[in-house]
Amino acid sequence: MGHDVSMTLRIDLNCDMGEGFGAWTLGRDAELLAWVTSANLACGFHAGDPSVMARTVRLARDRGVAVGAHPGLPDLQGFGRRAMAVSPEEVRLMVLYQVGALAAIARAEGARLAHVKPHGALYTMAAADPALARAVARAVRETDPGLALVGLSGSALVAAAEEAGLRPVPEVFADRGYEADGSLTPRGLPGALVEDPALAAERVLRMVREGRVRARTGEDVPIRAGTVCIHGDAPGALATARAVREALDGAGIAVAAPAAAP
Amino acid sequence: MGHDVSMTLRIDLNCDMGEGFGAWTLGRDAELLAWVTSANLACGFHAGDPSVMARTVRLARDRGVAVGAHPGLPDLQGFGRRAMAVSPEEVRLMVLYQVGALAAIARAEGARLAHVKPHGALYTMAAADPALARAVARAVRETDPGLALVGLSGSALVAAAEEAGLRPVPEVFADRGYEADGSLTPRGLPGALVEDPALAAERVLRMVREGRVRARTGEDVPIRAGTVCIHGDAPGALATARAVREALDGAGIAVAAPAAAP
Amino acid sequence: MGHDVSMTLRIDLNCDMGEGFGAWTLGRDAELLAWVTSANLACGFHAGDPSVMARTVRLARDRGVAVGAHPGLPDLQGFGRRAMAVSPEEVRLMVLYQVGALAAIARAEGARLAHVKPHGALYTMAAADPALARAVARAVRETDPGLALVGLSGSALVAAAEEAGLRPVPEVFADRGYEADGSLTPRGLPGALVEDPALAAERVLRMVREGRVRARTGEDVPIRAGTVCIHGDAPGALATARAVREALDGAGIAVAAPAAAP
Amino acid sequence: MGHDVSMTLRIDLNCDMGEGFGAWTLGRDAELLAWVTSANLACGFHAGDPSVMARTVRLARDRGVAVGAHPGLPDLQGFGRRAMAVSPEEVRLMVLYQVGALAAIARAEGARLAHVKPHGALYTMAAADPALARAVARAVRETDPGLALVGLSGSALVAAAEEAGLRPVPEVFADRGYEADGSLTPRGLPGALVEDPALAAERVLRMVREGRVRARTGEDVPIRAGTVCIHGDAPGALATARAVREALDGAGIAVAAPAAAP
Repeated sequence: MGHDVSMTLRIDLNCDMGEGFGAWTLGRDAELLAWVTSANLACGFHAGDPSVMARTVRLARDRGVAVGAHPGLPDLQGFGRRAMAVSPEEVRLMVLYQVGALAAIARAEGARLAHVKPHGALYTMAAADPALARAVARAVRETDPGLALVGLSGSALVAAAEEAGLRPVPEVFADRGYEADGSLTPRGLPGALVEDPALAAERVLRMVREGRVRARTGEDVPIRAGTVCIHGDAPGALATARAVREALDGAGIAVAAPAAAP
Repeated sequence: MGHDVSMTLRIDLNCDMGEGFGAWTLGRDAELLAWVTSANLACGFHAGDPSVMARTVRLARDRGVAVGAHPGLPDLQGFGRRAMAVSPEEVRLMVLYQVGALAAIARAEGARLAHVKPHGALYTMAAADPALARAVARAVRETDPGLALVGLSGSALVAAAEEAGLRPVPEVFADRGYEADGSLTPRGLPGALVEDPALAAERVLRMVREGRVRARTGEDVPIRAGTVCIHGDAPGALATARAVREALDGAGIAVAAPAAAP
Repeated sequence: MGHDVSMTLRIDLNCDMGEGFGAWTLGRDAELLAWVTSANLACGFHAGDPSVMARTVRLARDRGVAVGAHPGLPDLQGFGRRAMAVSPEEVRLMVLYQVGALAAIARAEGARLAHVKPHGALYTMAAADPALARAVARAVRETDPGLALVGLSGSALVAAAEEAGLRPVPEVFADRGYEADGSLTPRGLPGALVEDPALAAERVLRMVREGRVRARTGEDVPIRAGTVCIHGDAPGALATARAVREALDGAGIAVAAPAAAP
Repeated sequence: MGHDVSMTLRIDLNCDMGEGFGAWTLGRDAELLAWVTSANLACGFHAGDPSVMARTVRLARDRGVAVGAHPGLPDLQGFGRRAMAVSPEEVRLMVLYQVGALAAIARAEGARLAHVKPHGALYTMAAADPALARAVARAVRETDPGLALVGLSGSALVAAAEEAGLRPVPEVFADRGYEADGSLTPRGLPGALVEDPALAAERVLRMVREGRVRARTGEDVPIRAGTVCIHGDAPGALATARAVREALDGAGIAVAAPAAAP
């Protein structure tokens, strides 16, 4: 990502939120909202019933954090993390359904959706499969062409967002390791998780300022960072969120949600 | 319903549709669309997954039939027909969620929602309980103040729609008997169902032209008819729909969906 | 409950467990198992997927705690706490289904079901409605006549268990207040919750030894205590469980699951 | 399948049943029961709520047809036909749960489970993946070692059933074409479906008597037939079921459910 030294660098910090359901809660939404600029809200298929959605919209709205939709596969028990053999048309319609549902609740609560980011297995599937990526992008454009579409940096989903005339927001991870080809280090391998908040902050700074990240195997990998994800369910999520935010603020980088489309 | 002889009488014919789910179908939507002017589409909580919703939107759109939302209680197994102890705020949010989801799918398929009619136990509960009725009306107004709200003629839901500044559409039934107090004859009592298409048509004509219906016990009951419901899952649904439609057409009554709000 | 001074008094301590679902957890099952003698496991309708059920069976089995089924209404979002209009036959079949499912998992994990206790709204409905109570009792007897059936002390469910030839286990609450008629003080009223562990323990001792409890309005109320419930999701659950258990142990009362039927 | 000419040949005819849910029905169970000897009942995850299960158990019991469990993936919307990334342990537990639930309902209705056959994507996944196949077989053995386990003839599931000491029942299809390697001709290719009842009956006779089937590409393929599946949702299901049954009866082949294990 080229940048001009005379311009202020700008980056978004995002976190998945509203991942409770009924009597169940997950994550420390209220505390994380102090550090992030975009919140991705579950929409009922893998988490997030209407009451959880409304509550989380109000929390984010009150903190001035941008509200986005986080649609997932219809799998409550698997939390949307189990890949399913769904067709592009099924994906298009499940994204329309979920984003439309959250948009209505957000509007009623005085907020407006700013972005969409697929969740879990749908995120991973849409990163790798161009047909599913195009189905997601089409659903987002059909809902509102002003919505930003967040996807894994360098993935098919970012390409599909561009192709659809949407604003793509390439996502990088503060708390995950990278391979030499720019993919995430699979969980289970050493270095898959970046658990030291200071190291996470340092890596994020470099991704934002230099467009590079050091791979597990030592190479420097080019990377485009439009938003930085903090996993809210990681044990050190709050410490990482705070360290990353403070490092960015300290470096004079503007931390803000992607600008709304005109 | 007072009317001026110099004006053309106007009435809507509606039917619940899109009540399949996944591999399951219910009702003869394609055939009924030839006779009705408004279709109420299930929105996923009691029936109607995203694929069924999209398919039914396209069917209705292609026949020029107005598309409305038919939100229900979250009870697939009970088809939304089992009363549940839900709070007004839960009702508000489940209506926002479902109507928003269908609105997004409709828009993507080139249609625009015209009305909302609660389904099953939610319909009955909102007819009798002013707090639940207001919750439904609030959700509809928050989604789009131009949406018409359909409820049992004379019920709390019609009153709540008026109070909320929405266009209320009082509903009457072609295939159901009435009690002297204007309520529906409970299923199981003799006369609960009007199964003869000719009789159904004759009763509808009188409700529309005279604003009266003959009760089970013989009294004439005043009734306001903004729309006439045909139950799509009744055995004689098609014959009744056709008889009612032809009677109305033959009497020079305009059969049309409620006019869109300005 | 009459008792002979020459006999050792005996009481069961129970707690609802396995109330997570998928990625969500609820309650501090592992810690509470140190104090209780019976665990009531959710069976998938209001909480508890197959993986949660198996995990909780193993936890209880390893601590020597009796495993029972805690079937609920089909309402994940409402955690089985919202009353639903279900028929006795629907109740019979949903209890058979859930208890059968847990029994199979328990057997595979080397445990055997000892009891059944309905959850949430189903518990309350079966306490008050004899037809629903009989439906629950019939399902339990059809599954295994050796299963104990736990219900609110003095309720229709205890009567139905007796009528069905099952071992009824009347339940009292350590952490709830009582009315003069023996019913629980409705949540929201002062005294509805007993939050002081020492007071809870003292009340339990009296219920077990004297068959009496002091009502909110001061009267002494006769009560039969076969098992004492500790609500695992109350903030002071662990402290209450420990205080009650230590008080019973200290008083020489045998704390044990209901004896298995011959 | 070797056979001795002096012995009576014996074969089972099976059909998936109880595939409704709530208000929805699917298939013509009552009519098909006249021709088949085993019924595979959905258990709630992809179809079949407790009421549907009980009703179908009674139907099969009254016709003397063997009742088996047809457990599927937790995907109502996809009818269990969409592959999902589930682990062997998740499969083991979902099979235990579903088979246990149906066993309890069957017992209460005076029937006893005779077999288990996985449904849809679970059937296909367990046919190809030995780890999933072993998980299914383990769950069946843990439920009741006397249960027969039905799987695609020649598949990993049949091998896992043998390995687990269960009675394996290799399944062949009356209404599907075969490839030269013994696999089913993928839907969409010419010859994937055998729609002529007479041809279906002739192919079944040859599979049962000669242990061979003619592949789409002309080769003779060896095949073991322990049971013949009739797809109840195919348009000509009834005609095929009748033709196959009459051909088998006419050829003096015993049509009967697999003998119960001792």
